Amino acid sequence: MATDAIRVAILGASGYTGAELLRVLLRHPRVRVVALTADRKAGEGIETVFPQFMGLNLPKLVTIKEVDWSGVDAVFCALPHGTTQEVIAGLPEHLKIVDLSADFRLRDLDEYAKWYGHEHRAPKLQDEAVYGLTEVYRDKVAKARLVANPGCYPTSAQLPLMPLLEAGQIDPDDIVIDAKSGVSGAGRALKEGSLYCEAAEGIHAYGVGSHRHGPEIEQILADASGQPMAVNFTPHLMPMNRGMLASIYVKLKPGVTADDLRTTLLQRYAEEPFVQIMPQGVSPQTRHVRGTNSCHIGVFADRVKGRAMLFSVIDNLMKGASGQAVQNFNVMYGLPETTGLEQIALFP
Amino acid sequence: MATDAIRVAILGASGYTGAELLRVLLRHPRVRVVALTADRKAGEGIETVFPQFMGLNLPKLVTIKEVDWSGVDAVFCALPHGTTQEVIAGLPEHLKIVDLSADFRLRDLDEYAKWYGHEHRAPKLQDEAVYGLTEVYRDKVAKARLVANPGCYPTSAQLPLMPLLEAGQIDPDDIVIDAKSGVSGAGRALKEGSLYCEAAEGIHAYGVGSHRHGPEIEQILADASGQPMAVNFTPHLMPMNRGMLASIYVKLKPGVTADDLRTTLLQRYAEEPFVQIMPQGVSPQTRHVRGTNSCHIGVFADRVKGRAMLFSVIDNLMKGASGQAVQNFNVMYGLPETTGLEQIALFP
Amino acid sequence: MATDAIRVAILGASGYTGAELLRVLLRHPRVRVVALTADRKAGEGIETVFPQFMGLNLPKLVTIKEVDWSGVDAVFCALPHGTTQEVIAGLPEHLKIVDLSADFRLRDLDEYAKWYGHEHRAPKLQDEAVYGLTEVYRDKVAKARLVANPGCYPTSAQLPLMPLLEAGQIDPDDIVIDAKSGVSGAGRALKEGSLYCEAAEGIHAYGVGSHRHGPEIEQILADASGQPMAVNFTPHLMPMNRGMLASIYVKLKPGVTADDLRTTLLQRYAEEPFVQIMPQGVSPQTRHVRGTNSCHIGVFADRVKGRAMLFSVIDNLMKGASGQAVQNFNVMYGLPETTGLEQIALFP
Amino acid sequence: MATDAIRVAILGASGYTGAELLRVLLRHPRVRVVALTADRKAGEGIETVFPQFMGLNLPKLVTIKEVDWSGVDAVFCALPHGTTQEVIAGLPEHLKIVDLSADFRLRDLDEYAKWYGHEHRAPKLQDEAVYGLTEVYRDKVAKARLVANPGCYPTSAQLPLMPLLEAGQIDPDDIVIDAKSGVSGAGRALKEGSLYCEAAEGIHAYGVGSHRHGPEIEQILADASGQPMAVNFTPHLMPMNRGMLASIYVKLKPGVTADDLRTTLLQRYAEEPFVQIMPQGVSPQTRHVRGTNSCHIGVFADRVKGRAMLFSVIDNLMKGASGQAVQNFNVMYGLPETTGLEQIALFP
Repeated sequence: MATDAIRVAILGASGYTGAELLRVLLRHPRVRVVALTADRKAGEGIETVFPQFMGLNLPKLVTIKEVDWSGVDAVFCALPHGTTQEVIAGLPEHLKIVDLSADFRLRDLDEYAKWYGHEHRAPKLQDEAVYGLTEVYRDKVAKARLVANPGCYPTSAQLPLMPLLEAGQIDPDDIVIDAKSGVSGAGRALKEGSLYCEAAEGIHAYGVGSHRHGPEIEQILADASGQPMAVNFTPHLMPMNRGMLASIYVKLKPGVTADDLRTTLLQRYAEEPFVQIMPQGVSPQTRHVRGTNSCHIGVFADRVKGRAMLFSVIDNLMKGASGQAVQNFNVMYGLPETTGLEQIALFP
Repeated sequence: MATDAIRVAILGASGYTGAELLRVLLRHPRVRVVALTADRKAGEGIETVFPQFMGLNLPKLVTIKEVDWSGVDAVFCALPHGTTQEVIAGLPEHLKIVDLSADFRLRDLDEYAKWYGHEHRAPKLQDEAVYGLTEVYRDKVAKARLVANPGCYPTSAQLPLMPLLEAGQIDPDDIVIDAKSGVSGAGRALKEGSLYCEAAEGIHAYGVGSHRHGPEIEQILADASGQPMAVNFTPHLMPMNRGMLASIYVKLKPGVTADDLRTTLLQRYAEEPFVQIMPQGVSPQTRHVRGTNSCHIGVFADRVKGRAMLFSVIDNLMKGASGQAVQNFNVMYGLPETTGLEQIALFP
Repeated sequence: MATDAIRVAILGASGYTGAELLRVLLRHPRVRVVALTADRKAGEGIETVFPQFMGLNLPKLVTIKEVDWSGVDAVFCALPHGTTQEVIAGLPEHLKIVDLSADFRLRDLDEYAKWYGHEHRAPKLQDEAVYGLTEVYRDKVAKARLVANPGCYPTSAQLPLMPLLEAGQIDPDDIVIDAKSGVSGAGRALKEGSLYCEAAEGIHAYGVGSHRHGPEIEQILADASGQPMAVNFTPHLMPMNRGMLASIYVKLKPGVTADDLRTTLLQRYAEEPFVQIMPQGVSPQTRHVRGTNSCHIGVFADRVKGRAMLFSVIDNLMKGASGQAVQNFNVMYGLPETTGLEQIALFP
Repeated sequence: MATDAIRVAILGASGYTGAELLRVLLRHPRVRVVALTADRKAGEGIETVFPQFMGLNLPKLVTIKEVDWSGVDAVFCALPHGTTQEVIAGLPEHLKIVDLSADFRLRDLDEYAKWYGHEHRAPKLQDEAVYGLTEVYRDKVAKARLVANPGCYPTSAQLPLMPLLEAGQIDPDDIVIDAKSGVSGAGRALKEGSLYCEAAEGIHAYGVGSHRHGPEIEQILADASGQPMAVNFTPHLMPMNRGMLASIYVKLKPGVTADDLRTTLLQRYAEEPFVQIMPQGVSPQTRHVRGTNSCHIGVFADRVKGRAMLFSVIDNLMKGASGQAVQNFNVMYGLPETTGLEQIALFP
């Protein structure tokens, strides 16, 4: 470990995104993980909670209060929505923070209050926070102290849609996003719907017309289209541990073809290490980005004239959460964005 | 077994739809299964091919040529597309036939040639065939000698959409059908994409803009809308044995609400034993129709004004294939439609 | 429904075994389900808890206290271990009862106290209870008022082992039972280990050397061997909804061959509708008994001299719970044992 | 890439073990992958066959004949059993070779002929080959030109058993190995049994008493016990992509306890980076070694006196194939054994 290691704390290390952060950061050449918190499991070893970390000699789980912040440079916050804002408000100012909760994603505080059921408790921090869709907001992330890491569904939808809206190639008023997620997206909390028998061998839509990632998607797409957005966004729960597919149905502006969309995306993401545009006719599969920070995007014309389809796949725990968090961290510290994120997908 | 049993042959009994027909028909109180064919496995016992039929003392598998048609009243044909039409053309005229292949589904022979790559080889039979979406074409099915059993994707999409198009409540030009299927829909043939490791723990779209169920859906929806139809239809393959969900995104006609759609569907299907409209706010799940001939339909308003969503689930091997085939058989013989199809879903 | 229907109550209808009882009993020609209890969900419709029962017009869920016992003939009790004994002790004496919990399975009250951590609270009932491994204790079941329905693991192990121990063909002191179960065996309770992500894509042993089904297996095997038994029994949790495989490793008595074991089992179960001995060389699969009350047993010689292997598969929710419960009910009422249990396995 | 990179060819890159080798070697700091062969897919890009390698600018697939061996230092051979021996016999002598097939694993050529159905075609090479269970044969591997990489089942069984046999703590004549494997162990070949619907939602034993890994296990265990071995080994196929659990049932020598076994294993593997002995009472899970070269071993006493249980989990594609192959390669080149193998398990 370099002597100039960046000392990192992971808040909420006993959840799936916390564990995924730890998996990545333990192999990050510039990071030393110095604190792991989990209020309800404080005192236990992380290898008791997650046996995949056996034999790595890691710091014990502690409560947030027990952390000695003077020895910490950066914080990854993987705490539940709603409680995060106050925790972060209470942290020392010298810390750089990547927050994986939804607490700082919505710029409009009224919108926040409407969707999350209470007034925001750290509006000043909200004002300071930068939305961390790295490929789009990289410059702001580089200067940020607090990054609001995007949700998984928003990431999968924004990456393919933003360049097309910016280019004015698709109709901003006719976008359907049918998204499918693996079960780890629901976290490790005990909910009936997350039980094996309730999630295996079947599929269903949930949060129909009411999922909190809807306004998040729209807020950011509006940056690209320059107009308020309303999209049809519907998440589905399906039997896989990790993975997310957004199937996106769009209406082409007059004279635009699906090939034009592909060209726009190829140009936009030519230099991006984590975004791949699939060759013509290749439909991306979630399994081929498993465990990676990559987003694979496919573009298809439809038989229906004037319409096209986009398929975007990510690993919900990586580009949809912990991987993008580390990518943002790299940007905040001026490191190459791929540092610690070079793994190739685990398939099968 | 009643002395007046209807003597049935299953052609193609070594595939999944063949096995599913057998599962249902063995418990059908008016049926006697007298012949099972499987050209490549002729001579074997069906319990060798499908051990779930152990101990039932069933007829051995034979070739189609070996069947003594004089002892057969009705035929379920579960053979591959393309070869079926000639087989059926060669069968004696006294037989009633339910064909589960796609060979007789498209009325327009040019359309057939375009999608299936060759001229239809039994155009006269095609002319005679009745499309067996039972809830819609029941009267014709009752008089038919040859029923073209609908595809699984078309069934899942047509049941929710037809009443709404007939009622003029949705825009026929703006329909997106995002469908998800279990792997049994691909049959038991050896294809790389059907291997466990290629289908588990992931999802992807396939046949994008080019799946043969597209024109089948449109042909029948046109019956309801009274105009040529072009819909956006995209199938996805996901890790489950059986089950199909069609998530359908529609534009409402001015003044129409999602509640109006629900009311239309409730009225249309009030007397139908196999179609259930879910209570407000309930999203149907494929697992709750597993092993049954049921279709569960949910209706939701969207946050986006003027738009609504329909979710329709079936078991692709039952209402999407063998179950509906038996339902049509029941209609053809004047039996109660639920005969042999009373099973409750196997969940979990 | 016949006017002479047997009026049945299901206690604990909101769990998986309760739902499975309901699935079977609703199609049982001699049964009318008149009461469904679920203390914590009382007041709800069962179709809210289990949407597969939509449209069937079933009695609402009530508390146990609310049941009018005068209108009930028989009770299936699918309540948790420990609480069941007091509930049953409080029921009127005119009721016939099949209890699916473990409360009345261990005859030895000391053994019960040791494994369940408290003195038995209804020792007189325990004395009266008959262990309901139907194929073995059929005569006693026929006269019983209270049947203790066997556990899933014990059922899968006892069926192949008992005839061989009775015949003295295997060494009672050298039996290894390596059992694999689907996740529904853990019920619908919220436990971390039952979450999709904790049970999918992996396997592990649990309850090693300490599972409560161990003494249950041994008690009953002792009936067959005529001596106290101690077996090596290890359960494993694996990713499937339902299904159980017991792989059993035995030492042959001198001069005995694996073929002799097969012959013994074939003779013993020749007339049994629910037990099938697989043909030579065929390894039974859990999927081929899915949804049925069947047990498939395979017998193999080992390369190691003097040893043999038995593979026994059941559906843990059916022959391992609700199916055998209905089989016992049929025996208690003098009905053909297969009544209501004729379904063929749902495969795939 | 260092200028002193070891130039590597992967033969058989279109299978799962080939792809897994590529995944690991592309991130190996001392390796340059210079050739990928796949006779039937020669001319295609590897990213067409395995889209997870998109965007990595890799050599095209070629036939074995097309490889320019002068630019190759080392070969990983992931070809089918039977054909491998002749391929390797035809390779230039300057190459170091790790062979993942079974062709060079059995030292006894008669035993080979018996199990593989033909005389060995490269007996001299067989004589030279070193069995690559790294933790045991490390010294020989270091000097070898040709390493026979162990099978997955043998690896999972040998690691826990060898130290105990060497220590004389368990009875060599009473060992039962009940092993469970994910489906990737069957490779990417088109077999009915590897189809999703045939492998999902169920489990069964296969190759009972006749699996070719039996003699491989016994040959190596005999090295430890100093006597000919005959073990009860039974593989099972279960629904997961990757993972393997060997549940091993042993008889203790008089006076030996399960704790003694644990102590022996802890001491034996104290310095081994890839073998972890689980804390008392912790049952290892395959998911916690997913994607890694680790083996987790749990030791348990049984209620049955004088008996104990060992549970050993590996990733069948890693420690059971490609990971151990790279570990052996590291040994052959004098590199730290963990080079390129530092990944932490992907869970969930």
